[in-house]
Amino acid sequence: MEEKEISKAVISRLPRYYRYLGDLIDAGVERISSNDLSQKMRVTASQIRQDLNNFGGFGQQGYGYNVKYLRTEIGKILGLNQKHNMLIIGVGSLGHALANYSSFEKHGFAVKGLFDVNPALKGASIRGIPICMMEDLEGFLQDHEIEIAALTIPKSQALEVADRLVKCGIKAIWNFTHTDLNLPEDVIVESVHLSDSLMKLSYNITTYKEEHGR
Amino acid sequence: MEEKEISKAVISRLPRYYRYLGDLIDAGVERISSNDLSQKMRVTASQIRQDLNNFGGFGQQGYGYNVKYLRTEIGKILGLNQKHNMLIIGVGSLGHALANYSSFEKHGFAVKGLFDVNPALKGASIRGIPICMMEDLEGFLQDHEIEIAALTIPKSQALEVADRLVKCGIKAIWNFTHTDLNLPEDVIVESVHLSDSLMKLSYNITTYKEEHGR
Repeated sequence: MEEKEISKAVISRLPRYYRYLGDLIDAGVERISSNDLSQKMRVTASQIRQDLNNFGGFGQQGYGYNVKYLRTEIGKILGLNQKHNMLIIGVGSLGHALANYSSFEKHGFAVKGLFDVNPALKGASIRGIPICMMEDLEGFLQDHEIEIAALTIPKSQALEVADRLVKCGIKAIWNFTHTDLNLPEDVIVESVHLSDSLMKLSYNITTYKEEHGR
Repeated sequence: MEEKEISKAVISRLPRYYRYLGDLIDAGVERISSNDLSQKMRVTASQIRQDLNNFGGFGQQGYGYNVKYLRTEIGKILGLNQKHNMLIIGVGSLGHALANYSSFEKHGFAVKGLFDVNPALKGASIRGIPICMMEDLEGFLQDHEIEIAALTIPKSQALEVADRLVKCGIKAIWNFTHTDLNLPEDVIVESVHLSDSLMKLSYNITTYKEEHGR
């Protein structure tokens, strides 16, 4: 693919296309017009066409989109045709929940190790994935090719652990800690701030109530 | 406050301001200039001024922002000065993780009940919050004032359960299911799609590799 800057907004919509196309496949749909897809996804057909044109289109005039082909192509753009090995640092309840998501594996994300500081967890495993102690992190990363580290640890330890990971060559962090990690620019950080999300919900409730006098 | 449309982008940045201002309070900082805040948050000072001007400013020329005051005001805009009662539907590992987040309560979100279909969980509780069976949902909602329902159930049941909640008057759903809920317009839905987030990370890894020939 040519090097060209794709906007963040487009990128953040791609997983949603991928998800809807998967649903269509499950429902036995083989092709779909941008109009029908737009109704399903509650976006305009022109937005869909514009978004996909960033990557060369994929549609055919008068035929619409081949669902399976389009999903495969979007999957390639998202890098889902490659394998991504992952660690989860912090086996509290959220780390536990992530470790239990077998569906990540279907998309190429394989959890290879779980790490925690709690000695009571030493030797335990989740879905066959061993729980290791934090002092073994550097050794583990030398022996295994790991691309992504998911951080589900308290905010107070987030930066220190992130630094250790970066020193070992980790270039991608899936950050669930309640802080932004200000890391070197070549480290990719994708944050999921659950509290931020809940606060957005609360904002929308409050605004709705004010507007409707409830 | 006047009725005026605040852009989604501004709204999604408010929790982040709230978070940083909390960190500043913890660090003993009493006031901060928009320049210093901008460096910390890695956004431009003019963006900060613009964002906050949507709500009337809060800053004083030559003084900067009073950290505590600004945080309180942003908290009010986000509705954090009000109490929001919440249910969690689905006590799998993610529901369990959410139920364990005691920090939500600090911001006014109180989990009042947990619901599941698994009879083995009947009568159990997490942090003193009882786990109820789904057949008791309607009765519970009659007896309790609940504003938000967090959905951590399989996609296959998401729409049916959401419909039941809406019929009982629930107007806000925090959606963790792997699907968008197409609900009536007066129901506020805030979705956290973990797979989408992981796919965005994967996209950025893939693009970075292509650009740097790794």
